[in-house]
Amino acid sequence: MKILLMYEPGAEHLARLQGAAPKADFVVAHDEEEARSLVVDADAVLGNRWFYQTVDAATRLQWMQSNSMGVDLILERAGHRDFILTCARGVYDGEVAQHAVGLALALARGLPAFRDAQHHAEWSRARLRDIGDMDALILGWGGVGQGIARLLEPFGTRVQSGRSDGRHSFDVDLLFLALPLTSRTRHLVGTEELRTLRQGALVVNVGRGETLDTDALLAATHLGGAALDVFESEPLPADHPLWERRDILITPHVARSIEAPPFRWEPLFEENVRRFAAGDPLLHVVNREKGY
Amino acid sequence: MKILLMYEPGAEHLARLQGAAPKADFVVAHDEEEARSLVVDADAVLGNRWFYQTVDAATRLQWMQSNSMGVDLILERAGHRDFILTCARGVYDGEVAQHAVGLALALARGLPAFRDAQHHAEWSRARLRDIGDMDALILGWGGVGQGIARLLEPFGTRVQSGRSDGRHSFDVDLLFLALPLTSRTRHLVGTEELRTLRQGALVVNVGRGETLDTDALLAATHLGGAALDVFESEPLPADHPLWERRDILITPHVARSIEAPPFRWEPLFEENVRRFAAGDPLLHVVNREKGY
Repeated sequence: MKILLMYEPGAEHLARLQGAAPKADFVVAHDEEEARSLVVDADAVLGNRWFYQTVDAATRLQWMQSNSMGVDLILERAGHRDFILTCARGVYDGEVAQHAVGLALALARGLPAFRDAQHHAEWSRARLRDIGDMDALILGWGGVGQGIARLLEPFGTRVQSGRSDGRHSFDVDLLFLALPLTSRTRHLVGTEELRTLRQGALVVNVGRGETLDTDALLAATHLGGAALDVFESEPLPADHPLWERRDILITPHVARSIEAPPFRWEPLFEENVRRFAAGDPLLHVVNREKGY
Repeated sequence: MKILLMYEPGAEHLARLQGAAPKADFVVAHDEEEARSLVVDADAVLGNRWFYQTVDAATRLQWMQSNSMGVDLILERAGHRDFILTCARGVYDGEVAQHAVGLALALARGLPAFRDAQHHAEWSRARLRDIGDMDALILGWGGVGQGIARLLEPFGTRVQSGRSDGRHSFDVDLLFLALPLTSRTRHLVGTEELRTLRQGALVVNVGRGETLDTDALLAATHLGGAALDVFESEPLPADHPLWERRDILITPHVARSIEAPPFRWEPLFEENVRRFAAGDPLLHVVNREKGY
Protein backbone atom coordinates (compact mmCIF):
# COMPACT_ATOMS: atom_id res chain seq x y z
CA MET A 1 0.00 0.00 0.00
CA LYS A 2 1.41 3.33 -1.09
CA ILE A 3 0.38 6.60 0.54
CA LEU A 4 1.45 9.85 -1.11
CA LEU A 5 1.87 13.01 0.95
CA MET A 6 1.42 16.30 -0.90
CA TYR A 7 3.02 18.36 1.87
CA GLU A 8 6.29 18.32 3.78
CA PRO A 9 5.73 16.23 6.93
CA GLY A 10 7.64 16.82 10.14
CA ALA A 11 9.69 13.83 11.31
CA GLU A 12 7.45 13.10 14.30
CA HIS A 13 4.29 13.25 12.25
CA LEU A 14 5.82 10.91 9.63
CA ALA A 15 6.80 8.49 12.38
CA ARG A 16 3.26 8.52 13.75
CA LEU A 17 1.83 7.94 10.26
CA GLN A 18 4.17 4.98 9.83
CA GLY A 19 3.10 3.68 13.23
CA ALA A 20 -0.55 4.00 12.20
CA ALA A 21 0.03 1.90 9.05
CA PRO A 22 3.24 -0.13 9.57
CA LYS A 23 2.97 -1.95 6.25
CA ALA A 24 2.33 1.13 4.14
CA ASP A 25 4.92 2.84 2.01
CA PHE A 26 4.85 6.62 2.59
CA VAL A 27 6.23 8.86 -0.16
CA VAL A 28 6.43 12.65 -0.27
CA ALA A 29 5.97 14.90 -3.32
CA HIS A 30 7.98 18.12 -3.28
CA ASP A 31 6.63 19.68 -6.46
CA GLU A 32 3.90 19.16 -9.03
CA GLU A 33 6.04 17.06 -11.34
CA GLU A 34 6.99 14.69 -8.56
CA ALA A 35 3.35 14.55 -7.45
CA ARG A 36 2.26 13.54 -10.98
CA SER A 37 4.82 10.79 -11.08
CA LEU A 38 4.19 9.44 -7.57
CA VAL A 39 0.39 9.53 -7.81
CA VAL A 40 0.34 6.90 -10.58
CA ASP A 41 0.40 3.90 -8.25
CA ALA A 42 -0.69 5.61 -5.01
CA ASP A 43 -3.55 4.03 -3.07
CA ALA A 44 -4.14 7.18 -1.10
CA VAL A 45 -3.21 10.86 -1.20
CA LEU A 46 -2.90 13.08 1.86
CA GLY A 47 -3.04 16.84 1.32
CA ASN A 48 -4.35 18.81 -1.63
CA ARG A 49 -1.35 20.89 -2.76
CA TRP A 50 -1.18 19.42 -6.31
CA PHE A 51 -4.07 16.97 -6.11
CA TYR A 52 -6.56 18.09 -8.71
CA GLN A 53 -3.73 19.03 -11.07
CA THR A 54 -2.34 15.46 -11.03
CA VAL A 55 -5.24 13.15 -10.16
CA ASP A 56 -5.81 12.10 -13.77
CA ALA A 57 -2.48 10.24 -13.70
CA ALA A 58 -3.67 8.06 -10.78
CA THR A 59 -4.45 4.43 -11.64
CA ARG A 60 -5.45 2.92 -8.29
CA LEU A 61 -6.46 5.79 -6.03
CA GLN A 62 -8.95 4.72 -3.38
CA TRP A 63 -8.85 7.59 -0.94
CA MET A 64 -7.94 11.26 -0.83
CA GLN A 65 -7.66 13.18 2.45
CA SER A 66 -8.00 16.93 1.98
CA ASN A 67 -6.34 19.35 4.38
CA SER A 68 -9.18 21.82 3.76
CA MET A 69 -12.66 22.00 5.18
CA GLY A 70 -14.13 23.14 1.89
CA VAL A 71 -13.81 20.64 -0.97
CA ASP A 72 -15.75 22.48 -3.69
CA LEU A 73 -12.67 22.93 -5.87
CA ILE A 74 -11.62 19.27 -5.53
CA LEU A 75 -15.13 18.14 -6.44
CA GLU A 76 -15.23 20.54 -9.39
CA ARG A 77 -11.86 19.50 -10.80
CA ALA A 78 -11.58 15.85 -9.70
CA GLY A 79 -15.19 14.87 -9.11
CA HIS A 80 -15.25 12.72 -12.27
CA ARG A 81 -12.85 10.29 -10.57
CA ASP A 82 -14.09 7.61 -8.22
CA PHE A 83 -12.40 7.74 -4.81
CA ILE A 84 -13.40 8.30 -1.21
CA LEU A 85 -12.89 11.95 -0.32
CA THR A 86 -12.41 12.96 3.30
CA CYS A 87 -12.12 16.56 4.46
CA ALA A 88 -10.50 18.32 7.39
CA ARG A 89 -13.80 19.00 9.09
CA GLY A 90 -13.44 20.47 12.56
CA VAL A 91 -9.70 20.98 12.36
CA TYR A 92 -9.85 24.75 11.86
CA ASP A 93 -13.25 25.54 13.42
CA GLY A 94 -11.81 27.40 16.38
CA GLU A 95 -9.46 29.58 14.37
CA VAL A 96 -12.02 30.40 11.67
CA ALA A 97 -14.72 31.23 14.23
CA GLN A 98 -12.21 33.44 16.07
CA HIS A 99 -11.36 35.27 12.85
CA ALA A 100 -15.05 35.80 12.12
CA VAL A 101 -15.73 37.27 15.56
CA GLY A 102 -12.58 39.39 15.29
CA LEU A 103 -13.86 40.79 11.98
CA ALA A 104 -17.31 41.51 13.45
CA LEU A 105 -15.76 43.32 16.42
CA ALA A 106 -13.45 45.27 14.11
CA LEU A 107 -16.50 46.54 12.18
CA ALA A 108 -18.57 47.27 15.28
CA ARG A 109 -15.70 49.14 16.94
CA GLY A 110 -14.77 51.14 13.83
CA LEU A 111 -11.23 49.74 13.61
CA PRO A 112 -10.82 49.98 9.80
CA ALA A 113 -11.78 53.68 9.88
CA PHE A 114 -9.52 54.35 12.87
CA ARG A 115 -6.63 52.64 11.09
CA ASP A 116 -7.23 54.80 8.02
CA ALA A 117 -7.33 57.90 10.25
CA GLN A 118 -4.07 56.83 11.89
CA HIS A 119 -2.28 57.29 8.55
CA HIS A 120 -3.22 60.98 8.75
CA ALA A 121 -2.55 61.32 12.51
CA GLU A 122 -6.24 62.09 12.80
CA TRP A 123 -7.94 61.91 16.21
CA SER A 124 -11.64 61.65 15.44
CA ARG A 125 -13.96 60.12 18.01
CA ALA A 126 -17.16 58.40 16.95
CA ARG A 127 -20.20 56.63 18.26
CA LEU A 128 -19.57 52.88 18.04
CA ARG A 129 -21.68 49.74 18.24
CA ASP A 130 -21.86 47.10 20.95
CA ILE A 131 -22.30 43.62 19.45
CA GLY A 132 -24.08 42.64 22.65
CA ASP A 133 -26.96 44.86 21.51
CA MET A 134 -27.23 43.08 18.16
CA ASP A 135 -29.33 40.32 16.65
CA ALA A 136 -27.12 38.02 14.61
CA LEU A 137 -27.88 35.39 11.98
CA ILE A 138 -25.30 32.69 11.35
CA LEU A 139 -25.64 30.91 8.00
CA GLY A 140 -23.85 27.56 8.11
CA TRP A 141 -24.43 25.65 11.31
CA GLY A 142 -21.37 23.41 11.16
CA GLY A 143 -18.38 23.60 13.44
CA VAL A 144 -17.50 27.15 12.42
CA GLY A 145 -21.02 28.52 12.76
CA GLN A 146 -21.52 26.87 16.13
CA GLY A 147 -18.08 28.08 17.17
CA ILE A 148 -19.04 31.67 16.31
CA ALA A 149 -22.18 31.31 18.43
CA ARG A 150 -20.12 30.01 21.36
CA LEU A 151 -17.68 32.90 21.17
CA LEU A 152 -20.51 35.45 20.96
CA GLU A 153 -22.32 34.10 23.99
CA PRO A 154 -20.61 36.16 26.72
CA PHE A 155 -21.04 39.32 24.63
CA GLY A 156 -24.81 38.86 24.90
CA THR A 157 -25.46 38.90 21.15
CA ARG A 158 -28.81 37.31 20.31
CA VAL A 159 -27.95 34.55 17.84
CA GLN A 160 -30.13 32.59 15.45
CA SER A 161 -28.84 29.94 13.09
CA GLY A 162 -29.79 29.55 9.46
CA ARG A 163 -32.43 26.91 8.83
CA SER A 164 -31.94 24.34 6.14
CA ASP A 165 -35.42 25.15 4.77
CA GLY A 166 -34.28 28.76 4.32
CA ARG A 167 -37.06 30.10 6.55
CA HIS A 168 -34.82 32.22 8.76
CA SER A 169 -35.17 35.97 9.05
CA PHE A 170 -32.63 38.39 7.61
CA ASP A 171 -34.07 41.13 9.82
CA VAL A 172 -30.82 41.29 11.84
CA ASP A 173 -27.92 43.61 12.66
CA LEU A 174 -25.13 41.15 11.99
CA LEU A 175 -24.91 38.42 9.36
CA PHE A 176 -22.25 35.72 9.40
CA LEU A 177 -21.69 33.46 6.38
CA ALA A 178 -19.90 30.24 7.26
CA LEU A 179 -21.22 28.09 4.44
CA PRO A 180 -19.66 25.46 2.20
CA LEU A 181 -19.99 26.12 -1.51
CA THR A 182 -22.55 23.83 -3.10
CA SER A 183 -25.13 24.26 -5.85
CA ARG A 184 -27.61 25.22 -3.10
CA THR A 185 -25.44 27.86 -1.44
CA ARG A 186 -24.13 29.71 -4.51
CA HIS A 187 -25.29 33.35 -4.16
CA LEU A 188 -27.50 32.31 -1.24
CA VAL A 189 -27.15 35.87 0.00
CA GLY A 190 -28.05 38.34 -2.76
CA THR A 191 -29.92 41.56 -3.32
CA GLU A 192 -33.13 40.51 -1.57
CA GLU A 193 -31.43 39.06 1.51
CA LEU A 194 -29.13 42.08 1.88
CA ARG A 195 -32.08 44.45 1.48
CA THR A 196 -33.81 42.74 4.40
CA LEU A 197 -30.87 43.35 6.74
CA ARG A 198 -31.42 46.24 9.14
CA GLN A 199 -30.10 49.74 8.56
CA GLY A 200 -26.41 49.78 9.48
CA ALA A 201 -26.15 45.98 9.51
CA LEU A 202 -22.76 44.29 9.33
CA VAL A 203 -21.84 41.33 7.08
CA VAL A 204 -18.97 38.89 7.70
CA ASN A 205 -18.04 36.09 5.29
CA VAL A 206 -15.52 33.41 6.30
CA GLY A 207 -17.02 30.51 4.34
CA ARG A 208 -16.81 30.67 0.54
CA GLY A 209 -16.84 33.82 -1.55
CA GLU A 210 -19.43 32.54 -4.01
CA THR A 211 -22.10 32.16 -1.28
CA LEU A 212 -22.41 35.97 -1.23
CA ASP A 213 -23.33 37.91 -4.39
CA THR A 214 -20.50 40.44 -4.48
CA ASP A 215 -22.25 42.75 -6.94
CA ALA A 216 -25.29 42.86 -4.67
CA LEU A 217 -23.05 43.69 -1.70
CA LEU A 218 -21.32 46.46 -3.65
CA ALA A 219 -24.73 47.90 -4.60
CA ALA A 220 -26.27 47.77 -1.11
CA THR A 221 -26.54 51.25 0.37
CA HIS A 222 -27.95 50.80 3.87
CA LEU A 223 -25.31 48.53 5.40
CA GLY A 224 -22.88 49.62 8.11
CA GLY A 225 -19.96 47.65 6.71
CA ALA A 226 -18.70 44.24 5.69
CA ALA A 227 -15.62 42.15 6.36
CA LEU A 228 -14.70 39.51 3.83
CA ASP A 229 -12.07 36.79 4.10
CA VAL A 230 -13.22 34.90 0.99
CA PHE A 231 -14.03 36.06 -2.53
CA GLU A 232 -15.63 34.87 -5.73
CA SER A 233 -12.20 35.03 -7.31
CA GLU A 234 -9.00 34.49 -5.29
CA PRO A 235 -6.57 36.12 -5.01
CA LEU A 236 -8.89 39.10 -5.31
CA PRO A 237 -7.84 40.84 -8.58
CA ALA A 238 -5.93 44.08 -8.02
CA ASP A 239 -8.49 46.09 -10.00
CA HIS A 240 -11.51 44.75 -8.11
CA PRO A 241 -13.79 47.50 -6.72
CA LEU A 242 -13.88 45.81 -3.29
CA TRP A 243 -10.33 46.97 -2.55
CA GLU A 244 -11.41 50.63 -2.81
CA ARG A 245 -14.37 50.38 -0.47
CA ARG A 246 -13.54 52.01 2.87
CA ASP A 247 -16.60 50.39 4.50
CA ILE A 248 -15.42 46.90 3.58
CA LEU A 249 -12.52 45.21 5.35
CA ILE A 250 -10.58 42.65 3.34
CA THR A 251 -8.44 39.82 4.71
CA PRO A 252 -6.75 37.49 2.20
CA HIS A 253 -8.36 34.11 3.02
CA VAL A 254 -6.55 33.73 6.34
CA ALA A 255 -9.39 32.81 8.72
CA ARG A 256 -7.58 29.52 8.62
CA SER A 257 -4.17 31.10 8.39
CA ILE A 258 -1.00 29.81 6.79
CA GLU A 259 0.47 27.01 8.87
CA ALA A 260 3.89 25.73 9.71
CA PRO A 261 4.57 22.27 11.17
CA PRO A 262 3.19 20.87 13.34
CA PHE A 263 0.04 21.22 11.24
CA ARG A 264 -3.32 21.24 12.98
CA TRP A 265 -4.48 18.49 10.62
CA GLU A 266 -1.88 15.92 11.76
CA PRO A 267 -3.99 14.06 14.37
CA LEU A 268 -6.84 13.66 11.87
CA PHE A 269 -4.54 12.42 9.11
CA GLU A 270 -2.88 9.93 11.47
CA GLU A 271 -6.23 8.59 12.67
CA ASN A 272 -7.61 8.26 9.13
CA VAL A 273 -4.44 6.50 7.95
CA ARG A 274 -4.85 4.02 10.81
CA ARG A 275 -8.47 3.47 9.78
CA PHE A 276 -7.61 3.15 6.09
CA ALA A 277 -4.93 0.53 6.80
CA ALA A 278 -7.28 -1.36 9.11
CA GLY A 279 -10.20 -1.17 6.69
CA ASP A 280 -12.27 0.81 9.22
CA PRO A 281 -14.68 3.60 8.19
CA LEU A 282 -12.88 6.89 7.63
CA LEU A 283 -13.70 10.09 9.49
CA HIS A 284 -15.34 13.04 7.68
CA VAL A 285 -16.20 11.35 4.41
CA VAL A 286 -17.60 13.94 1.99
CA ASN A 287 -21.11 13.38 0.66
CA ARG A 288 -20.55 14.24 -2.98
CA GLU A 289 -24.19 15.04 -3.61
CA LYS A 290 -24.33 17.54 -0.78
CA GLY A 291 -20.87 18.82 -1.61
CA TYR A 292 -19.49 18.78 1.93
CA MET B 1 -32.22 71.66 46.96
CA LYS B 2 -30.72 72.51 43.58
CA ILE B 3 -29.23 69.89 41.29
CA LEU B 4 -27.25 71.05 38.25
CA LEU B 5 -26.98 68.85 35.16
CA MET B 6 -23.91 69.37 32.99
CA TYR B 7 -25.38 67.47 30.02
CA GLU B 8 -28.56 67.65 27.95
CA PRO B 9 -31.06 65.27 29.53
CA GLY B 10 -33.77 63.51 27.56
CA ALA B 11 -37.32 64.34 28.68
CA GLU B 12 -37.97 60.88 30.13
CA HIS B 13 -34.72 60.85 32.07
CA LEU B 14 -35.45 64.32 33.46
CA ALA B 15 -38.92 63.18 34.51
CA ARG B 16 -37.42 60.17 36.30
CA LEU B 17 -34.88 62.41 38.06
CA GLN B 18 -37.70 64.69 39.21
CA GLY B 19 -39.61 61.63 40.41
CA ALA B 20 -36.55 60.47 42.37
CA ALA B 21 -36.27 63.84 44.16
CA PRO B 22 -39.69 65.59 43.95
CA LYS B 23 -38.63 68.59 46.05
CA ALA B 24 -35.40 69.24 44.18
CA ASP B 25 -34.94 71.96 41.61
CA PHE B 26 -33.20 70.58 38.49
CA VAL B 27 -31.33 73.01 36.24
CA VAL B 28 -29.39 72.34 33.05
CA ALA B 29 -26.21 74.07 31.88
CA HIS B 30 -25.78 74.36 28.12
CA ASP B 31 -22.31 75.87 28.03
CA GLU B 32 -19.41 76.65 30.33
CA GLU B 33 -20.58 80.16 31.16
CA GLU B 34 -24.01 78.94 32.19
CA ALA B 35 -22.41 76.16 34.19
CA ARG B 36 -20.26 78.69 36.11
CA SER B 37 -23.31 80.77 36.92
CA LEU B 38 -25.58 77.88 37.91
CA VAL B 39 -22.99 76.05 40.00
CA VAL B 40 -22.80 78.89 42.54
CA ASP B 41 -25.73 77.70 44.65
CA ALA B 42 -25.95 74.10 43.43
CA ASP B 43 -26.08 71.37 46.09
CA ALA B 44 -25.13 68.72 43.57
CA VAL B 45 -23.71 68.43 40.07
CA LEU B 46 -24.45 65.57 37.67
CA GLY B 47 -22.04 65.08 34.75
CA ASN B 48 -18.50 66.34 34.28
CA ARG B 49 -18.67 68.36 31.05
CA TRP B 50 -17.57 71.70 32.62
CA PHE B 51 -17.16 70.57 36.23
CA TYR B 52 -13.52 71.12 37.07
CA GLN B 53 -13.50 74.34 35.04
CA THR B 54 -16.30 75.86 37.15
CA VAL B 55 -16.17 74.15 40.55
CA ASP B 56 -14.35 77.04 42.23
CA ALA B 57 -17.48 79.17 41.84
CA ALA B 58 -19.53 76.68 43.88
CA THR B 59 -20.48 77.79 47.39
CA ARG B 60 -22.55 74.91 48.76
CA LEU B 61 -21.65 71.85 46.68
CA GLN B 62 -22.13 68.60 48.62
CA TRP B 63 -22.01 65.99 45.87
CA MET B 64 -20.70 65.53 42.36
CA GLN B 65 -21.69 62.54 40.17
CA SER B 66 -19.21 61.90 37.37
CA ASN B 67 -20.31 60.23 34.16
CA SER B 68 -16.84 58.67 33.83
CA MET B 69 -15.32 55.62 35.44
CA GLY B 70 -11.94 57.27 35.80
CA VAL B 71 -11.89 60.37 38.04
CA ASP B 72 -8.16 61.13 38.01
CA LEU B 73 -8.65 64.43 36.20
CA ILE B 74 -11.45 65.56 38.53
CA LEU B 75 -9.31 64.72 41.58
CA GLU B 76 -6.33 66.52 40.08
CA ARG B 77 -8.23 69.69 39.21
CA ALA B 78 -10.96 69.78 41.86
CA GLY B 79 -9.52 67.64 44.64
CA HIS B 80 -8.88 70.68 46.82
CA ARG B 81 -12.63 71.12 47.23
CA ASP B 82 -14.59 69.18 49.79
CA PHE B 83 -17.50 67.26 48.27
CA ILE B 84 -18.59 63.66 47.90
CA LEU B 85 -17.48 62.34 44.52
CA THR B 86 -19.26 59.39 42.93
CA CYS B 87 -18.17 57.78 39.68
CA ALA B 88 -19.89 55.83 36.90
CA ARG B 89 -18.38 52.53 38.00
CA GLY B 90 -19.77 49.53 36.11
CA VAL B 91 -21.75 51.55 33.61
CA TYR B 92 -19.37 51.01 30.68
CA ASP B 93 -17.66 47.76 31.70
CA GLY B 94 -19.22 45.67 28.96
CA GLU B 95 -18.43 48.08 26.15
CA VAL B 96 -14.86 48.74 27.31
CA ALA B 97 -14.13 45.02 27.77
CA GLN B 98 -15.56 44.37 24.30
CA HIS B 99 -13.33 47.05 22.79
CA ALA B 100 -10.30 45.55 24.54
CA VAL B 101 -11.00 42.06 23.21
CA GLY B 102 -11.72 43.50 19.76
CA LEU B 103 -8.31 45.19 19.80
CA ALA B 104 -6.56 42.00 20.94
CA LEU B 105 -8.24 40.00 18.16
CA ALA B 106 -7.36 42.69 15.61
CA LEU B 107 -3.68 42.35 16.56
CA ALA B 108 -3.72 38.55 16.67
CA ARG B 109 -5.46 38.31 13.29
CA GLY B 110 -3.25 40.91 11.60
CA LEU B 111 -6.12 43.28 10.79
CA PRO B 112 -4.12 46.55 10.90
CA ALA B 113 -1.59 45.14 8.41
CA PHE B 114 -4.33 43.75 6.17
CA ARG B 115 -6.08 47.14 6.20
CA ASP B 116 -2.83 48.84 5.22
CA ALA B 117 -2.36 46.28 2.42
CA GLN B 118 -5.92 46.93 1.23
CA HIS B 119 -4.93 50.50 0.34
CA HIS B 120 -2.47 49.02 -2.17
CA ALA B 121 -4.82 46.24 -3.37
CA GLU B 122 -2.23 43.86 -1.98
CA TRP B 123 -3.17 40.20 -1.37
CA SER B 124 -0.54 38.91 1.02
CA ARG B 125 -1.32 35.92 3.21
CA ALA B 126 0.38 35.46 6.55
CA ARG B 127 0.63 33.18 9.51
CA LEU B 128 -1.62 34.52 12.25
CA ARG B 129 -2.06 33.94 15.96
CA ASP B 130 -4.88 32.23 17.84
CA ILE B 131 -5.62 33.98 21.14
CA GLY B 132 -6.78 30.63 22.48
CA ASP B 133 -3.13 29.54 22.44
CA MET B 134 -2.05 32.53 24.53
CA ASP B 135 -1.33 33.25 28.18
CA ALA B 136 -2.82 36.61 29.12
CA LEU B 137 -2.29 38.93 32.07
CA ILE B 138 -5.02 41.43 32.92
CA LEU B 139 -3.88 44.38 35.04
CA GLY B 140 -6.85 45.97 36.75
CA TRP B 141 -9.30 43.48 38.19
CA GLY B 142 -12.36 45.74 38.31
CA GLY B 143 -15.44 45.43 36.16
CA VAL B 144 -13.53 45.94 32.94
CA GLY B 145 -10.74 43.48 33.73
CA GLN B 146 -13.19 40.81 34.86
CA GLY B 147 -15.31 41.54 31.80
CA ILE B 148 -12.31 40.93 29.54
CA ALA B 149 -11.69 37.60 31.29
CA ARG B 150 -15.33 36.59 30.77
CA LEU B 151 -15.23 37.42 27.07
CA LEU B 152 -11.95 35.52 26.60
CA GLU B 153 -13.20 32.38 28.29
CA PRO B 154 -14.72 30.59 25.26
CA PHE B 155 -11.59 31.38 23.20
CA GLY B 156 -9.60 29.25 25.64
CA THR B 157 -7.06 31.96 26.50
CA ARG B 158 -5.32 31.21 29.81
CA VAL B 159 -5.95 34.30 31.93
CA GLN B 160 -4.30 35.52 35.10
CA SER B 161 -5.20 38.72 36.88
CA GLY B 162 -2.76 41.25 38.23
CA ARG B 163 -2.15 40.97 41.97
CA SER B 164 -2.34 44.01 44.18
CA ASP B 165 1.06 43.11 45.65
CA GLY B 166 2.51 43.26 42.14
CA ARG B 167 3.74 39.66 42.29
CA HIS B 168 2.25 38.56 39.00
CA SER B 169 4.29 37.31 36.09
CA PHE B 170 4.76 39.31 32.91
CA ASP B 171 5.90 36.13 31.14
CA VAL B 172 2.82 36.17 28.91
CA ASP B 173 1.75 36.53 25.27
CA LEU B 174 -0.96 39.10 25.82
CA LEU B 175 -1.09 41.98 28.30
CA PHE B 176 -4.25 43.98 29.01
CA LEU B 177 -4.12 47.23 30.97
CA ALA B 178 -7.49 48.19 32.47
CA LEU B 179 -6.21 50.27 35.37
CA PRO B 180 -7.35 53.52 36.97
CA LEU B 181 -4.71 56.23 37.11
CA THR B 182 -3.41 56.70 40.65
CA SER B 183 -0.03 57.45 42.16
CA ARG B 184 0.52 53.68 42.37
CA THR B 185 -0.37 52.87 38.76
CA ARG B 186 1.50 55.66 36.96
CA HIS B 187 3.98 53.95 34.59
CA LEU B 188 3.21 50.63 36.25
CA VAL B 189 4.20 48.99 32.98
CA GLY B 190 7.62 50.21 31.87
CA THR B 191 10.85 48.96 30.35
CA GLU B 192 11.33 46.04 32.76
CA GLU B 193 7.77 44.77 32.54
CA LEU B 194 7.72 45.02 28.74
CA ARG B 195 11.08 43.24 28.53
CA THR B 196 9.63 40.31 30.47
CA LEU B 197 6.78 39.85 27.99
CA ARG B 198 7.32 36.96 25.58
CA GLN B 199 8.69 37.35 22.07
CA GLY B 200 5.86 38.58 19.85
CA ALA B 201 3.65 39.52 22.80
CA LEU B 202 0.69 41.85 22.30
CA VAL B 203 -0.21 44.82 24.53
CA VAL B 204 -3.68 46.38 24.82
CA ASN B 205 -4.44 49.48 26.94
CA VAL B 206 -8.03 50.58 27.56
CA GLY B 207 -7.51 52.05 31.06
CA ARG B 208 -5.46 55.21 31.35
CA GLY B 209 -2.58 56.21 29.10
CA GLU B 210 -0.24 57.12 31.96
CA THR B 211 -0.27 53.57 33.36
CA LEU B 212 1.94 52.50 30.42
CA ASP B 213 5.31 54.15 29.80
CA THR B 214 4.91 55.17 26.16
CA ASP B 215 8.64 55.73 25.61
CA ALA B 216 9.35 52.23 26.90
CA LEU B 217 6.72 50.82 24.54
CA LEU B 218 8.19 52.71 21.59
CA ALA B 219 11.65 51.36 22.46
CA ALA B 220 10.61 47.72 22.94
CA THR B 221 11.81 45.60 20.03
CA HIS B 222 10.51 42.09 20.68
CA LEU B 223 6.77 42.75 20.83
CA GLY B 224 4.29 41.59 18.19
CA GLY B 225 2.17 44.72 18.37
CA ALA B 226 0.12 46.98 20.58
CA ALA B 227 -3.33 48.54 20.49
CA LEU B 228 -3.91 51.68 22.49
CA ASP B 229 -7.17 53.46 23.20
CA VAL B 230 -5.72 55.81 25.83
CA PHE B 231 -2.61 58.00 25.84
CA GLU B 232 -0.43 60.02 28.15
CA SER B 233 -1.66 63.10 26.33
CA GLU B 234 -5.09 63.27 24.69
CA PRO B 235 -5.91 63.99 21.97
CA LEU B 236 -2.68 62.32 20.87
CA PRO B 237 -0.58 65.16 19.34
CA ALA B 238 -0.39 65.02 15.55
CA ASP B 239 3.41 64.80 15.63
CA HIS B 240 3.56 61.94 18.16
CA PRO B 241 5.69 58.99 16.97
CA LEU B 242 2.92 56.52 17.93
CA TRP B 243 0.88 57.55 14.87
CA GLU B 244 3.66 56.37 12.53
CA ARG B 245 4.10 52.95 14.06
CA ARG B 246 2.57 50.33 11.78
CA ASP B 247 2.74 47.70 14.57
CA ILE B 248 0.64 49.86 16.89
CA LEU B 249 -3.09 50.34 16.39
CA ILE B 250 -4.56 53.58 17.69
CA THR B 251 -8.20 54.23 18.60
CA PRO B 252 -9.12 57.69 19.92
CA HIS B 253 -10.37 56.92 23.46
CA VAL B 254 -13.55 55.24 22.28
CA ALA B 255 -13.58 52.01 24.30
CA ARG B 256 -16.45 53.80 25.97
CA SER B 257 -17.62 55.44 22.81
CA ILE B 258 -19.45 58.71 22.32
CA GLU B 259 -23.03 58.42 23.48
CA ALA B 260 -26.35 59.85 22.46
CA PRO B 261 -29.47 59.79 24.68
CA PRO B 262 -30.56 57.61 26.32
CA PHE B 263 -27.20 57.56 28.11
CA ARG B 264 -26.03 54.37 29.76
CA TRP B 265 -25.46 56.32 32.96
CA GLU B 266 -29.10 57.36 33.44
CA PRO B 267 -30.23 54.55 35.78
CA LEU B 268 -27.22 55.15 38.06
CA PHE B 269 -27.80 58.93 38.14
CA GLU B 270 -31.49 58.46 38.93
CA GLU B 271 -30.76 56.02 41.76
CA ASN B 272 -28.08 58.27 43.27
CA VAL B 273 -30.38 61.31 43.08
CA ARG B 274 -33.03 59.33 44.95
CA ARG B 275 -30.45 58.40 47.58
CA PHE B 276 -29.11 61.96 47.85
CA ALA B 277 -32.59 63.40 48.38
CA ALA B 278 -33.41 60.70 50.94
CA GLY B 279 -30.11 61.08 52.76
CA ASP B 280 -29.14 57.48 51.96
CA PRO B 281 -25.54 56.40 51.20
CA LEU B 282 -24.62 57.03 47.58
CA LEU B 283 -23.44 54.34 45.16
CA HIS B 284 -19.82 54.26 43.92
CA VAL B 285 -18.34 56.87 46.24
CA VAL B 286 -14.72 57.50 45.24
CA ASN B 287 -12.05 56.85 47.84
CA ARG B 288 -9.90 59.94 47.32
CA GLU B 289 -6.82 58.34 48.82
CA LYS B 290 -6.98 55.36 46.47
CA GLY B 291 -8.01 57.57 43.58
CA TYR B 292 -10.92 55.41 42.36
